[in-house]
Amino acid sequence: MDIAKPYLLFLGDVPDQLAAKTAMGVVDWRPEWCVGQMRLPGCKADTGLPDLSIAEAVAKGARTMVVGVANAGGVLPEHWVKEIVAALAAGLDVATGLHKRLGSIPEIAEAAARHGRTLHDVRFTELSFATGKGTKRQGMRLLTVGTDCSVGKKYTALAIDREMHRRGLSSDFRATGQTGVLISGRGVALDAVVADFISGAAEWISPENAPDHWDIVEGQGSLFHPSFAGVTLGLLHGSQPDCFVVCHEPTRATMRGVKHPLPSIRQVIERTIIEGSLTNPAIACIGIAINTEHLSGEVALAYLKETGEAHGLPCVDPIRTGVGPLVDALIHRYGR
Amino acid sequence: MDIAKPYLLFLGDVPDQLAAKTAMGVVDWRPEWCVGQMRLPGCKADTGLPDLSIAEAVAKGARTMVVGVANAGGVLPEHWVKEIVAALAAGLDVATGLHKRLGSIPEIAEAAARHGRTLHDVRFTELSFATGKGTKRQGMRLLTVGTDCSVGKKYTALAIDREMHRRGLSSDFRATGQTGVLISGRGVALDAVVADFISGAAEWISPENAPDHWDIVEGQGSLFHPSFAGVTLGLLHGSQPDCFVVCHEPTRATMRGVKHPLPSIRQVIERTIIEGSLTNPAIACIGIAINTEHLSGEVALAYLKETGEAHGLPCVDPIRTGVGPLVDALIHRYGR
Repeated sequence: MDIAKPYLLFLGDVPDQLAAKTAMGVVDWRPEWCVGQMRLPGCKADTGLPDLSIAEAVAKGARTMVVGVANAGGVLPEHWVKEIVAALAAGLDVATGLHKRLGSIPEIAEAAARHGRTLHDVRFTELSFATGKGTKRQGMRLLTVGTDCSVGKKYTALAIDREMHRRGLSSDFRATGQTGVLISGRGVALDAVVADFISGAAEWISPENAPDHWDIVEGQGSLFHPSFAGVTLGLLHGSQPDCFVVCHEPTRATMRGVKHPLPSIRQVIERTIIEGSLTNPAIACIGIAINTEHLSGEVALAYLKETGEAHGLPCVDPIRTGVGPLVDALIHRYGR
Repeated sequence: MDIAKPYLLFLGDVPDQLAAKTAMGVVDWRPEWCVGQMRLPGCKADTGLPDLSIAEAVAKGARTMVVGVANAGGVLPEHWVKEIVAALAAGLDVATGLHKRLGSIPEIAEAAARHGRTLHDVRFTELSFATGKGTKRQGMRLLTVGTDCSVGKKYTALAIDREMHRRGLSSDFRATGQTGVLISGRGVALDAVVADFISGAAEWISPENAPDHWDIVEGQGSLFHPSFAGVTLGLLHGSQPDCFVVCHEPTRATMRGVKHPLPSIRQVIERTIIEGSLTNPAIACIGIAINTEHLSGEVALAYLKETGEAHGLPCVDPIRTGVGPLVDALIHRYGR
């Protein structure tokens, strides 16, 4: 799935900023791919980009309209369908992360066919993958792993990729979730792949590359999460990372959606090395990324210092401190 | 997926016995569910059951025609389609484990709709699963695990279930693969489930039950297989086994389809306990099942003895020695 850029971000008439989280992610990480936003009357979200009509966006070079909003129930409102059809007629592709497939709506399917446009349902994939091979591929790979779901694995990977670009290093962010796919314009929502092909899809996401090139792979779930550990393990085996960063949210009491306690950072390091060794015996932990948003400034910095010292690893909050020390550690260890 | 019994086994005109492996599995394990076989001119396979026409099978009470053959390329030959349509018209459901969905063939889809019959594509599932919850369910569970794919996990589980029935114990074989589903008339081919729902599907396959009831769950893949370990881990977490049996084929040099060496039985025991503890801290290995078909009689028996002694566990070949010692160990440990 390669999504044509740049994007027009469609916000519809969502009732609050949170509903436009996907669009905000794209603007935060890929502002250069966004020509503007399109809002319907009553919209309470705002990305801060200029408001454009479909015609204005096309004139500015837009190639794809990204429906960057989550609506209650996953249903596509009728008045959004009208705008999507208008975008297709104007020559734009359309991409969404909604539960409902665009092509399952007859007006949209017909308009796409009539105008020769592509529909991207990033929650789904039409790709056929091979089963994983487990053989070593050229190129370097870093995977973000977590003590739980939603602890900053995507954010950390994007921040590392950005920092590496700043330093002139060769890297790509590799998306494995729907928002990541819209941010990178490529990738696969791994949790939607048929189980037999998890590691094969992870191999496809991070293909062979130049010896000094880094793929910074977005992690999913946790090896300790009873709902999703299978996805996490398949991604670990398929991405065969040379190194990994453990992501953690220190105020979380139980794992997301279940009653299990969180594992310790040390448990995650040890288990990831045990399991990751199957496809990369040299796998190593390169650092720790903490989401300290629920801690006050002083407490947060003390926590980062203590945690780093306890594990003998650089420990950062990607937002509060940046990921510089993680990239320093990478360069120090691998010289590239 | 509940497949109506008894079955008429359709063998088509396959060129050899191996192509009828699925039908043979059903006859071996569920002879009481099979009213007969139906063969077309030129068929080189034989289950040993009486040859019946569709009308004769219906008269004998058949409810479902099982297409128990694998044909080259997964395509359904035109002259088989004709017979499937005739079976639907005669009031039979139709079940297959083929790659091609029955409903994707217009004549078959129309006939099923017209006659109100059900089509079972056991390689696929139309069920929606919840994500795994990881909470303890009542009832006892045994899972077969393996050093590799295709080392006897299904056969061992079926043999244990049969032995428990013989002794008047309460148990069910729980199928997680397509042949197992046809043998048990229920279950899900776990490798075809969307990745996010592996452990949730495994929880569905083995639901809450009476305290002294055993689910004997068919294992999949291996925690050490770089292609399929994600499925194996999701199944382990979702089935939350109280105990497991390690299955092994001692002459295998590399893991199926890849170049990785096989793990040792001890490695599989240790890793299964480490990972399985997440949803059942009391998990224990109860024994070892070896497929000794490539060893001569004396060598095989010596190997079983040595392997059992080395691990301090009962070690059997389900075909050569039966699984009695495994069920003895179960009763000894759990008293039920």
